Amino acid sequence: MAKNIILMCLIFTLFCSGLAVEVGPLQDFCVADSTSMVMPSGLMCKNPMQVEANDFYYGGLNIPSNKTTPTGINVALVDVDQLPGLNTLGISMARIDYALDGINPPHIHPRATEMLVLIEGSLHVGFVTSNPQNRLISRVIHTGDVFVFPAGLIHFQRNVGNRIAVALLSLSSQNPGLLNIRDAVETLPESVKFK
Amino acid sequence: MAKNIILMCLIFTLFCSGLAVEVGPLQDFCVADSTSMVMPSGLMCKNPMQVEANDFYYGGLNIPSNKTTPTGINVALVDVDQLPGLNTLGISMARIDYALDGINPPHIHPRATEMLVLIEGSLHVGFVTSNPQNRLISRVIHTGDVFVFPAGLIHFQRNVGNRIAVALLSLSSQNPGLLNIRDAVETLPESVKFK
Amino acid sequence: MAKNIILMCLIFTLFCSGLAVEVGPLQDFCVADSTSMVMPSGLMCKNPMQVEANDFYYGGLNIPSNKTTPTGINVALVDVDQLPGLNTLGISMARIDYALDGINPPHIHPRATEMLVLIEGSLHVGFVTSNPQNRLISRVIHTGDVFVFPAGLIHFQRNVGNRIAVALLSLSSQNPGLLNIRDAVETLPESVKFK
Amino acid sequence: MAKNIILMCLIFTLFCSGLAVEVGPLQDFCVADSTSMVMPSGLMCKNPMQVEANDFYYGGLNIPSNKTTPTGINVALVDVDQLPGLNTLGISMARIDYALDGINPPHIHPRATEMLVLIEGSLHVGFVTSNPQNRLISRVIHTGDVFVFPAGLIHFQRNVGNRIAVALLSLSSQNPGLLNIRDAVETLPESVKFK
Amino acid sequence: MAKNIILMCLIFTLFCSGLAVEVGPLQDFCVADSTSMVMPSGLMCKNPMQVEANDFYYGGLNIPSNKTTPTGINVALVDVDQLPGLNTLGISMARIDYALDGINPPHIHPRATEMLVLIEGSLHVGFVTSNPQNRLISRVIHTGDVFVFPAGLIHFQRNVGNRIAVALLSLSSQNPGLLNIRDAVETLPESVKFK
Amino acid sequence: MAKNIILMCLIFTLFCSGLAVEVGPLQDFCVADSTSMVMPSGLMCKNPMQVEANDFYYGGLNIPSNKTTPTGINVALVDVDQLPGLNTLGISMARIDYALDGINPPHIHPRATEMLVLIEGSLHVGFVTSNPQNRLISRVIHTGDVFVFPAGLIHFQRNVGNRIAVALLSLSSQNPGLLNIRDAVETLPESVKFK
Repeated sequence: MAKNIILMCLIFTLFCSGLAVEVGPLQDFCVADSTSMVMPSGLMCKNPMQVEANDFYYGGLNIPSNKTTPTGINVALVDVDQLPGLNTLGISMARIDYALDGINPPHIHPRATEMLVLIEGSLHVGFVTSNPQNRLISRVIHTGDVFVFPAGLIHFQRNVGNRIAVALLSLSSQNPGLLNIRDAVETLPESVKFK
Repeated sequence: MAKNIILMCLIFTLFCSGLAVEVGPLQDFCVADSTSMVMPSGLMCKNPMQVEANDFYYGGLNIPSNKTTPTGINVALVDVDQLPGLNTLGISMARIDYALDGINPPHIHPRATEMLVLIEGSLHVGFVTSNPQNRLISRVIHTGDVFVFPAGLIHFQRNVGNRIAVALLSLSSQNPGLLNIRDAVETLPESVKFK
Repeated sequence: MAKNIILMCLIFTLFCSGLAVEVGPLQDFCVADSTSMVMPSGLMCKNPMQVEANDFYYGGLNIPSNKTTPTGINVALVDVDQLPGLNTLGISMARIDYALDGINPPHIHPRATEMLVLIEGSLHVGFVTSNPQNRLISRVIHTGDVFVFPAGLIHFQRNVGNRIAVALLSLSSQNPGLLNIRDAVETLPESVKFK
Repeated sequence: MAKNIILMCLIFTLFCSGLAVEVGPLQDFCVADSTSMVMPSGLMCKNPMQVEANDFYYGGLNIPSNKTTPTGINVALVDVDQLPGLNTLGISMARIDYALDGINPPHIHPRATEMLVLIEGSLHVGFVTSNPQNRLISRVIHTGDVFVFPAGLIHFQRNVGNRIAVALLSLSSQNPGLLNIRDAVETLPESVKFK
Repeated sequence: MAKNIILMCLIFTLFCSGLAVEVGPLQDFCVADSTSMVMPSGLMCKNPMQVEANDFYYGGLNIPSNKTTPTGINVALVDVDQLPGLNTLGISMARIDYALDGINPPHIHPRATEMLVLIEGSLHVGFVTSNPQNRLISRVIHTGDVFVFPAGLIHFQRNVGNRIAVALLSLSSQNPGLLNIRDAVETLPESVKFK
Repeated sequence: MAKNIILMCLIFTLFCSGLAVEVGPLQDFCVADSTSMVMPSGLMCKNPMQVEANDFYYGGLNIPSNKTTPTGINVALVDVDQLPGLNTLGISMARIDYALDGINPPHIHPRATEMLVLIEGSLHVGFVTSNPQNRLISRVIHTGDVFVFPAGLIHFQRNVGNRIAVALLSLSSQNPGLLNIRDAVETLPESVKFK
């Protein structure tokens, strides 16, 4: 078996190597092949002839996600893993429900700008600019308001209303990535942590 | 002096605007300088020191746009013209309200994929693939459903429910562009129009 | 067999996933491997050691294509399918022969600007700008004239001379794509078609 | 006033020109503003309302350029300097006429792949791959043949027929650039020149 | 006149700077015009005819920077502000001197991968992967060792030898950006800070 | 066997074709899978769970490479072949040792700008601009000096001190490529060589 794997990779590299390199797609779309999605980073296309409307469809954003975080939010992310038609198209969305005082804690999307529409409630939203300024850019927003968090900056939202809040988010990548600052800092060696 | 500055920016935008486009910024953000926005294609940055939270804010998506089209929809677009902080960030949003039988007629966004979340109602949504297949990829969606329209393809939405429908749209460009097929075809010379 | 396919895809994803991501090539060239070209979208490279001059060669543009369309044109396209050396290089060409009154009907190349050189004859050529202007930009051109059709806009050519016309076209993609407006409109549901 | 505008644009181009480059436009097109084109690298857009068909037009490729080089070729280049509508669109073309034994000597286009269609005659064409292989990829082509020279590699053409030859070239940049190897080598200090 | 030119460039940079970014230049190079560099984000080109060798030169990396940080390092950054010839070329470098126990504290370069060569000494180096894994990837390196920190991830270095350490760094952007995690976290509102 | 290869490629193309297309990575990193690296151009990712610190590490740049060229330099290149963690990250480095009068002869990196730090000694460094100017941009540099060679231009270094010289180089690609002008010119057919 191991021999076959090596043989296959060898054949693959001999015949198929140097794959990459195009800016902008080479076809109408490239629906991610879900049967082959063992790992979330795949970019393989489903046979275009077998593509159907449901490859571009996802249902259920009218209800909150059923996973509650310790900071009081429920996040339903619709990225390429949930909606294979998003593959190569550079966009994804999410719904976040905020409990009373619920917080989406400081985090970074390294590969996406976030544009938030507040469907219901009131949020304190903001981000911090980079060195050397480190300015806080923040304000409170209400139902129907939109706020933009530029890619790569630390940002947050906090429910400051007296009821739950619900937001819809657009993200400028099929796979925005997430650096939770607290989780990352806790992972650092004690010797370089700030006190 | 102030007059001259405005005049120069005006001249600059009139003669020199629409310079370029971002693939990966060179700074945290580049808020479009609204005082110089004589033309909608400008990409000049506001002085970062004068940037404030409201540059990333837009209010009012909780109510329909007050412009009704002949086909029975109201569109409120939030792109870089309404929200200068979107400049160079590759994303925009819109709210569409559909009257009974309201239609968002066949059109193309040449520079953006569209991801639609149906907030309320029922829509027939779809797009047509390119030559030589020309397949119709369509279905009916309901409240809470999401559908994706790949960039550059002719697509449409039609209200097929028995009440109004409301959708929020994400678009993968700060300035998606719009080709209305009917308007474009009517503009064509008679000699090349198809009957 | 099905098991093997799944196994192979699994192995492939385990060992080879996350392929993408470079802007600008990583080698001199990446000739498309024609033995594996079951589908036209492939981007695999032939072993560079086995690349030869004929991988960069195509013959026969001195004669018209032998396929005549209903609108009176013959198109010979030289893209990556005919010339595997074009893979990843962002360019292709075509020859079009126009019968008397022959029309290249309104269409879009979603991924390429088109630059036309008229080798012989006279053509009415043009394109329509996007909303809200919908301006017709057109003129008649003659032997030796060049005209540019920007990517993503509806454009056309019509033979307005008293003999055949012949044009050579450059396209800024290895795979420009084609949306024939009439074919696409006919594919649309009756309910959203314009009358 | 008009004088000042021109002066300002002149100053702007002298001091600030060559700003950037497109990867995906933010509008339909960006016709280079020819009144401000003091330097060839400008990318400023003409006011879209004043754009007309002739901005996308160039005449005269049916006749050879009237400048003959010492190596026996005449080159007529149609890039953004001759055809302002090419600005930001990533393509240009050229016509080359080869006298008997005329040579397009070894050179590099650092920013463009070249696709050559031989309209008439016979050429020996080829390029050299990079280190460590340094393979010569070459062949003789005849009327109607197409050959591709990948971006960034040293390539050449030589007339090997018994009459003149004429070629049309597509180049995958609005401004392909040119490194003539002989001219560059002669510019080098004697101490690093190879003998 | 000269005063006016400087004034105009100043106004231009104050109001219009930070325009865009290169993916593939349109000329050989675009040396940043230092007379107009009121703000660090400018991308205007010096007149190519006036470019000289010193535009591509910077001296003094053989000695440490004279600014010592509270965490015991001295950083000399050579980016486009110090070396105008780097403009649009996508690379910069730095020298860091680490005192005994000196720390380059946890930070992110949002626009650049960092490749470090240790000229002298011993460092503990590492980075943290993104959610949900949050793995620490770290090791100790010694004189002559190289380590890579992927763009957008939190990383650090700490002097763990018994003498000073000196490193040279390559960064894959002319303007890598810097998010110091401690500084950013301190800027956050108390209500969303983690305890 | 041959049948199996074809079958595999067929299966691969049916299920996995159309791979390409993203600008900017879709994950934290994509360490090149060294077990499958039969050819140097591969871009396959190692399973992220098995990635470890040593994938981002390379040792030994404190000593010269042991391969001396005929022109008197020793080059140790650290690109994606030596350091698999560099895959997709757009950067590499090298150490060059120059003997007395040692020359790094005229060459081009088609895919990378080079930024050189002189650790020790004195070098004459320079490059030639493109047609029609063909200007020599050169100077002598000493210990601690930095010089930049823009991507795609012919450049060189020569030891002009009275001892050995040592330089560290940053290159803005994981795989910069190398065109040695002398080797390429010698490969050209005699008929197009310049005398």
